[in-house]
Amino acid sequence: MKISFIGSGNVATQLALALQKIGGVKIHQIISRDKGHAKNLAMQVKADHNHELSRLKPNFDLLILAVNDDAIADILTQTPLPDNKIICHTAGSVASTVFKDMSRKYGVIYPLQTISKNKTTVWKSLPILITASDDSTEKRLTQLVKHLTRATHVITDEQRFALHVAAVFACNFSNAMMQISQKLCAENNIDFDLLKPLTQETFEKAERMGPRNAQTGPAKRGDQSVINKHLEFLKDHDLEKNLYRDLSAYIQQTYRS
Amino acid sequence: MKISFIGSGNVATQLALALQKIGGVKIHQIISRDKGHAKNLAMQVKADHNHELSRLKPNFDLLILAVNDDAIADILTQTPLPDNKIICHTAGSVASTVFKDMSRKYGVIYPLQTISKNKTTVWKSLPILITASDDSTEKRLTQLVKHLTRATHVITDEQRFALHVAAVFACNFSNAMMQISQKLCAENNIDFDLLKPLTQETFEKAERMGPRNAQTGPAKRGDQSVINKHLEFLKDHDLEKNLYRDLSAYIQQTYRS
Repeated sequence: MKISFIGSGNVATQLALALQKIGGVKIHQIISRDKGHAKNLAMQVKADHNHELSRLKPNFDLLILAVNDDAIADILTQTPLPDNKIICHTAGSVASTVFKDMSRKYGVIYPLQTISKNKTTVWKSLPILITASDDSTEKRLTQLVKHLTRATHVITDEQRFALHVAAVFACNFSNAMMQISQKLCAENNIDFDLLKPLTQETFEKAERMGPRNAQTGPAKRGDQSVINKHLEFLKDHDLEKNLYRDLSAYIQQTYRS
Repeated sequence: MKISFIGSGNVATQLALALQKIGGVKIHQIISRDKGHAKNLAMQVKADHNHELSRLKPNFDLLILAVNDDAIADILTQTPLPDNKIICHTAGSVASTVFKDMSRKYGVIYPLQTISKNKTTVWKSLPILITASDDSTEKRLTQLVKHLTRATHVITDEQRFALHVAAVFACNFSNAMMQISQKLCAENNIDFDLLKPLTQETFEKAERMGPRNAQTGPAKRGDQSVINKHLEFLKDHDLEKNLYRDLSAYIQQTYRS
């Protein structure tokens, strides 16, 4: 199976590196507007490379667009696509049907993880979510990624989109909460490392009991007097104060209903 | 050292169980309005118990008020306190000076962890933060808790308060984010366990690199088109939509400045 990539970023890099190790798979070509990145990845996976979309070689079996969610539609208008080959993207927020006017066989390979170019992805049990235009494409994509992980799942475009939103809350926003905590510690000359046992227990408890059952704190207890004192403490931090108030209200509301 | 407790909840239970194992320490009396809880804990630590504050025996060396932050001031008005004994509480949001009109020696023993009655606390490296009225009290409290953990620290009332707010963000609010994620998965028929590798990596990355450096996602990238699509997805979830918008704005603002 000849696989070509458009893109040379975090996901393209880790996916190409992993796929090339599968028997019978050959990474065919890397196309990326950034010449240096294209060349660098192409050398690692022993593929051709180019920085112009028009130079995409047509003789691939699978083309993977691993680019920013936003760039996909744009790229499609500039790329000559052969029919009867499978075309995929790796984006959480873009429907597979973005391809439907230019190919009969298309799909999505969505790895549910935060992936970095420079940190080798551990694929073994990492969920990869597949969406496909038809049964035979679904089967081919699933067979392929099963070589990477035991956690392959077929989902709809709508489910992948919901999962993407859920991932923003569980990953990006929970990290932002820790970031505010880090900032408050720094301002008050407190070593943020003191909080490590607490954040560790928080995460493990959520995993063990589910976050719904693991919730604790003044908002969960309905302890309005502590909440008010905390808001008073944050009076010179408008943004953090508003977030504290809204998040406490959210938790209180959740346990009332 | 004779130690008495007012309170029989999560912190009182785990602290009494741990302190009684120290050589030379005797848990003297447990006072709690809930007769059954008082008796139950007293039996476990071989102490007397009572449910009336007026029955506090005066011959203790250290009295620990391990009750809700709100209840401390109230309890003090009803309790006859002998002078020259050390009085402590365990609350994050109450200054040690709450005791200053009734004792010359007072302080705070604040364990920075979410503690449950029914789950044995692992004290070994759990931060315990000490505040004290004077050097000799500070020394006695520090010596005592050093038997429990190697992570004892002396901090001011102001620092403990800031730490308490920081802990709400890092623990309670990050858990609330995972709770929203869990809810969105349930509504869209997605197994929440799919997100486990992602939340695990999120937490480990924040610990390894610090949350400021670990931030990822559409808001961090300034990807407004994905943010808008996510907000559209949440259009029937007013609360979650507002949180999504405000948290994204917060992250964007943080990386702009």
